[in-house]
Amino acid sequence: MPKISNRGNSIPASPIRKLVPFAEEAKRNGKEIFHLNIGQPDILTPKSAIQAVKNTDMQVLAYSHSAGFESYRKKLVGYYEKFDIDIEHTDIIVTTGASEAISFGMMSCLDPGDEVIVPEPFYANYNGFSISGGIKVKPITAFIENDYALPPISDFEKQITPNTKAILICNPSNPTGYLYSKEELLALKEIVLKHDLFLFADEVYREFCYDDNTFTSILTINGLEEHAVVFDSISKRFSACGARIGSIVSKNKEVMATAMKFAQARLSPPTLAQILAEATLDVPDSYLSEAIAEYDERRKLLTSRLQQMEGVTCPRPTGAFYAFARLPIDDADRFCKWLLQDFEQNGASVMLAPGTGFYSSEGLGKQEVRMAYVLNKEDLTKALDCLEAALKVYPGRFLREE
Amino acid sequence: MPKISNRGNSIPASPIRKLVPFAEEAKRNGKEIFHLNIGQPDILTPKSAIQAVKNTDMQVLAYSHSAGFESYRKKLVGYYEKFDIDIEHTDIIVTTGASEAISFGMMSCLDPGDEVIVPEPFYANYNGFSISGGIKVKPITAFIENDYALPPISDFEKQITPNTKAILICNPSNPTGYLYSKEELLALKEIVLKHDLFLFADEVYREFCYDDNTFTSILTINGLEEHAVVFDSISKRFSACGARIGSIVSKNKEVMATAMKFAQARLSPPTLAQILAEATLDVPDSYLSEAIAEYDERRKLLTSRLQQMEGVTCPRPTGAFYAFARLPIDDADRFCKWLLQDFEQNGASVMLAPGTGFYSSEGLGKQEVRMAYVLNKEDLTKALDCLEAALKVYPGRFLREE
Repeated sequence: MPKISNRGNSIPASPIRKLVPFAEEAKRNGKEIFHLNIGQPDILTPKSAIQAVKNTDMQVLAYSHSAGFESYRKKLVGYYEKFDIDIEHTDIIVTTGASEAISFGMMSCLDPGDEVIVPEPFYANYNGFSISGGIKVKPITAFIENDYALPPISDFEKQITPNTKAILICNPSNPTGYLYSKEELLALKEIVLKHDLFLFADEVYREFCYDDNTFTSILTINGLEEHAVVFDSISKRFSACGARIGSIVSKNKEVMATAMKFAQARLSPPTLAQILAEATLDVPDSYLSEAIAEYDERRKLLTSRLQQMEGVTCPRPTGAFYAFARLPIDDADRFCKWLLQDFEQNGASVMLAPGTGFYSSEGLGKQEVRMAYVLNKEDLTKALDCLEAALKVYPGRFLREE
Repeated sequence: MPKISNRGNSIPASPIRKLVPFAEEAKRNGKEIFHLNIGQPDILTPKSAIQAVKNTDMQVLAYSHSAGFESYRKKLVGYYEKFDIDIEHTDIIVTTGASEAISFGMMSCLDPGDEVIVPEPFYANYNGFSISGGIKVKPITAFIENDYALPPISDFEKQITPNTKAILICNPSNPTGYLYSKEELLALKEIVLKHDLFLFADEVYREFCYDDNTFTSILTINGLEEHAVVFDSISKRFSACGARIGSIVSKNKEVMATAMKFAQARLSPPTLAQILAEATLDVPDSYLSEAIAEYDERRKLLTSRLQQMEGVTCPRPTGAFYAFARLPIDDADRFCKWLLQDFEQNGASVMLAPGTGFYSSEGLGKQEVRMAYVLNKEDLTKALDCLEAALKVYPGRFLREE
């Protein structure tokens, strides 16, 4: 029997995935499970965008241009302008979700054996795309004591080797909700220019900023034109995760020409979903402002409740729709499994994402969990009631000495 | 300025893509171009499948299961049964086109530096997926004199090294239209078992068989259960190329578990298109039998016309909707460009795919072209009138000594 690849073996098993059977079992037993574990928004997809698909008169569902509908890319230019991003439609390739954008960016800029530096905790699937391409992820740890801000540039310097080709950030961050300041991005610029690296930014949450903080795209930073590569998606901003429409954006013509070769190999992004994506650009601004206002209320609810729980530390997230908290527990994987298997309050429990899945450094994240505030406030309250009660009785409760 | 990756550089520039500007220029100048260069069918997508999307009452376009809708996979089991393929729904992962299936298969089974043997001429995009994963394609040449049948197994033996992990075939073949016989597949079985290799088969054209030939899937061959991995797609059989719905199918549980990790990293295949794909399984058989009858007429028209042209050799294709012909020309790339730039008859010309793009061995394919018979018979006739007239006056005309 032939052996599967080493790269296939080396993709870490996701701690969330390991919990799924326990969640399913709990539900079969009649327990209600509140899902804070996944970034699937409950907000309705814009009706007008779904309607645009229903209105299509396409008779042959043909390939689109490998870079996506030209009409969509031209309209996207106007969208990016709102964030002071000055690009042409040829600087955009429409991708099958941000996932494919990340993959194209990695493949276009890095070879097997090359290294990409990523501040951790980070979005776990960056591992999968790196491993596919034989690329090594070098983590730099961001700390809760510092609100998961950008680690000092000296930490980056220490990780740089002759194989380092890129730095990857997620801004605002999944999983921490941290929004990078312009100053932090300028600090990154310096090291990127000094070592002639690419700077990748996953900016899929750019609209989700709170407390009057403003988002800065790496595409607006002078001097980074040839270095900045942005990964984007409509999944979160229009609650259209299943559309699988994203984009890769860069002013570096060579990067885009190379990404285009990978795009041509896979022929075309999904056509029906591109109709939907193009229609999202005509959705009134109120759709997003209402969604953001709703997330903001949930964020306040979540963080104020967490801060009242003994032994819990949670920096107030300033972006995205996640909070990354430290809990008074011995082991996040064990705790999250226990929540599903052994705990219930009023017939319910809560599913969280163990922090361990977001670190590449061995042993980190054992006291942390990620919570996506993608439930309405009533359910979110019930979820937090569960968490609060659970923390009081969890056998592995463990209070840190401060 | 940071450098792009070597792998990005090493994806060969597609000969068809190089022709696109000349085709666009010709059209701008008012010339009508008949496209035999691309496998985009003109057949209508089943109305009922498009209607299924229009009927959706989805309000949140959410991620699907990473392996695709369970309901769709369960129904696919019944589809595969019609070809004597005996699998469970857990042996299927729904992918974003066959493209992603090929990518998952390669990544799951091969590491950077590993080799896959592919009979040439082959579908050019296999190069892109291999190069993404740092995998080396080792071609084995199939010859027109032999109708592009499977090369002798001794040729395979010669190419096998300690790094060889898989053999990849396309059956029926894009670009040659050759349908492998059961005997040929059994010959492949022998070498696959002897060297403990994976056998990949791209079977997206399995319905398109002519002259009473029958298709055999590698999934039906006893003893290959742990070796056979099939790449599939609805693109061609339901003229739904833009849906981007395919699948990877294998009874090897380890391969499927590994492919699932790559599937989870990219979250989900497109949701709207999965609704369409699921609905194709209820399309009456007459849809496909009518499409195949239409292709068969075109095939007969194409091959009988080609056989009447002096110096043209074209084995009658027994599957898919392509013909691969040898023309009396000096250089296929030059000829195809000349057709667009310098030739016209009654204000029209024809676009073909140069044979060179389908060979990995240097220098092969210079007298060959691929023709996709995806035009109605009237247009196909006009296209062939152009080709016949063009061959008579092409300055690089070159008659082989037989």
